[in-house]
Amino acid sequence: MTNRSLLILPGDGIGPEVMAEVRKIIDWFGTQGIAFDVSEDLVGGAAYDAHGTPLHDDTMAKAQEVDAVLLGAVGGPKYDVLDFSVKPERGLLRLRKEMDLYANLRPAQCFDALADFSSLKKDVVAGLDIMIVRELTSGVYFGEPRGIHKEGNERVGINTQRYTESEIARVARSAFELARKRGNKVCSMEKANVMESGILWRDVVQEVHDAEYPDVELSHMYADAGAMQLTRWPKQFDVIVTDNLFGDLLSDLAAMLTGSLGMLPSASLGAPMANGRPKALYEPVHGSAPDIAGQGKANPIACILSFAMALRYSFDLGDAADKVEKAVEAVLADGLRTADLLGEEGTTPVSTAEMGDAIVAKL
Amino acid sequence: MTNRSLLILPGDGIGPEVMAEVRKIIDWFGTQGIAFDVSEDLVGGAAYDAHGTPLHDDTMAKAQEVDAVLLGAVGGPKYDVLDFSVKPERGLLRLRKEMDLYANLRPAQCFDALADFSSLKKDVVAGLDIMIVRELTSGVYFGEPRGIHKEGNERVGINTQRYTESEIARVARSAFELARKRGNKVCSMEKANVMESGILWRDVVQEVHDAEYPDVELSHMYADAGAMQLTRWPKQFDVIVTDNLFGDLLSDLAAMLTGSLGMLPSASLGAPMANGRPKALYEPVHGSAPDIAGQGKANPIACILSFAMALRYSFDLGDAADKVEKAVEAVLADGLRTADLLGEEGTTPVSTAEMGDAIVAKL
Ligand SMILES: CC(C)[C@H](C(=O)O)[C@@H](O)C(=O)O
Ligand SMILES: CC(C)[C@H](C(=O)O)[C@@H](O)C(=O)O
Repeated sequence: MTNRSLLILPGDGIGPEVMAEVRKIIDWFGTQGIAFDVSEDLVGGAAYDAHGTPLHDDTMAKAQEVDAVLLGAVGGPKYDVLDFSVKPERGLLRLRKEMDLYANLRPAQCFDALADFSSLKKDVVAGLDIMIVRELTSGVYFGEPRGIHKEGNERVGINTQRYTESEIARVARSAFELARKRGNKVCSMEKANVMESGILWRDVVQEVHDAEYPDVELSHMYADAGAMQLTRWPKQFDVIVTDNLFGDLLSDLAAMLTGSLGMLPSASLGAPMANGRPKALYEPVHGSAPDIAGQGKANPIACILSFAMALRYSFDLGDAADKVEKAVEAVLADGLRTADLLGEEGTTPVSTAEMGDAIVAKL
Repeated sequence: MTNRSLLILPGDGIGPEVMAEVRKIIDWFGTQGIAFDVSEDLVGGAAYDAHGTPLHDDTMAKAQEVDAVLLGAVGGPKYDVLDFSVKPERGLLRLRKEMDLYANLRPAQCFDALADFSSLKKDVVAGLDIMIVRELTSGVYFGEPRGIHKEGNERVGINTQRYTESEIARVARSAFELARKRGNKVCSMEKANVMESGILWRDVVQEVHDAEYPDVELSHMYADAGAMQLTRWPKQFDVIVTDNLFGDLLSDLAAMLTGSLGMLPSASLGAPMANGRPKALYEPVHGSAPDIAGQGKANPIACILSFAMALRYSFDLGDAADKVEKAVEAVLADGLRTADLLGEEGTTPVSTAEMGDAIVAKL
């Protein structure tokens, strides 16, 4: 037994393939005296196929006990017909909610070697490095009442956006803490001009700022203007903090700016456990990409960089995380490219497994 | 008395300046036998300053009677301190709600002469022509319960996303009707993987399609994926239909893709009145831009093109609308540019008023 435990949930589609490459990195660290206790289990459609539920209670219990969960991706067309309550996504949402992973960190970083893949002009995105902190356990994703009911002859669909003061304050703190280690700037986004929950959001973020982080530069923006400004000139931002639903759209938008989704990791963090480590789940930003699953075309880098985030945020192994990130940059500089990033002259196409091997070789 | 009535609400910031140029166009049509009864009134901060409310009941009543309302823009930093209930935006939201303007048409069109102003690569946006149809009178903007209350020691902010079957069906019909006159393709966006109101949205759009518009090509996309795809390759879309809140973000994003917000009009349409014309409000997509107000820097084209939409959708004067749109293209081809579009070689800077005059001259 080591004192570092990991639960791996490869999930669906390309999840298992990219996770196989992360395993190689984990194994390499094992040979260097940084070992992990790794267990593996099912989530999403894979769990539904085996157990009739997208997350078995035993898996949920294991996730609560480990230091960090690494997740591949969930979902696929095969499961589209399932009832809402057992869709692959519910497995992921249950993990987030029951582990209380309230701060979703989604870096949008543009790798120099890949700036050409962006649909945006090179000067707009080259060197881009922003961090979106999305609230992940509340808001319209989980608010009650919810559902579809009949009123007279009509169906009516309802969801509730609900935020408490403490839910807003804790994710605001995550954003301010991160900003202090980066550009020291936070922009908070909501629709306070239309939604009362947005007014509360704005007020609480401002109060936390004034009381605890007056040294950090804070601004507020309406989420629609935020979408515009991210498109127009994303480099104006350092850390963005926003709610669950706006964060879903804005972080995907920010990810797409970089042009290389297959490169982007994420971390979802909760409160510290008894051992001081935060509850944590790490996953790539990309989805399960069922259309290319099993063909060796998937880019394992987003999942590998998610493991690097685990090294940094769960295990306080910043140097090891740097090492992984440098190895990724080095293979890109060598011109190795998986199928999602082909096209540039002078680059070499590689498979998912070859990319993983090349990164291990650089370590 | 003509049989065409217009209520002009210039509003705040650059609203009055750009509306002055629209007046020139209206006057020109008057000399050509296409006359309008024009009245003018206050909205937003301007109405608050005069009456202590962002929309006086008398103005609301007038808006209900005319064939079309033309609005400039509302809001400004001066009004940020006001209570939610009397903020400039409430005037606009009251007009939308009480006139029941459920279909907000927001074209995102990239003018060839201006493609360089986009932050996106030229081939991604040149020739772009999509139409976003946003539901405008329901959803989280108007759902009850809403507000901020105390639970124990904590403030809690609540808003309700609520859609009925008929609210979804009518805006879906607007989208399908428009698609038939365009590329015959509709993409509907929601978060059916997370929100029950999104499931109802998806189901009803599909049902309306199957029963009444089987000839139109229909697809569904999650709104976060929609934000990504709009950024990656917007030309894949023809008509997009989505709810009030997603529409707010996605239409602003789509507008920003074109690089020239100062060019984009919008129409908000309701049910037909006794005379067969729909309830209608037209407004530019840009805001009140208080920072440049009163300096002759504002681009009046978005507001002028909003009037062109009024000619087309309220008065069935498609030829007259074409004429205005051609005149706008002609002045752009001549190289005339307001302050928002400066920088290209061989173009001539003009003021707001000079731009208006030039467009009239082309008519
Ligand atoms: C899969 C889905 C439930 C999820 C979400 O909406 O949060 C995804 O889009 C994400 O951003 O992680
Ligand atoms: C001004 C504001 C209330 C409005 C909205 O949120 O609908 C605006 O952003 C819009 O899109 O017309």
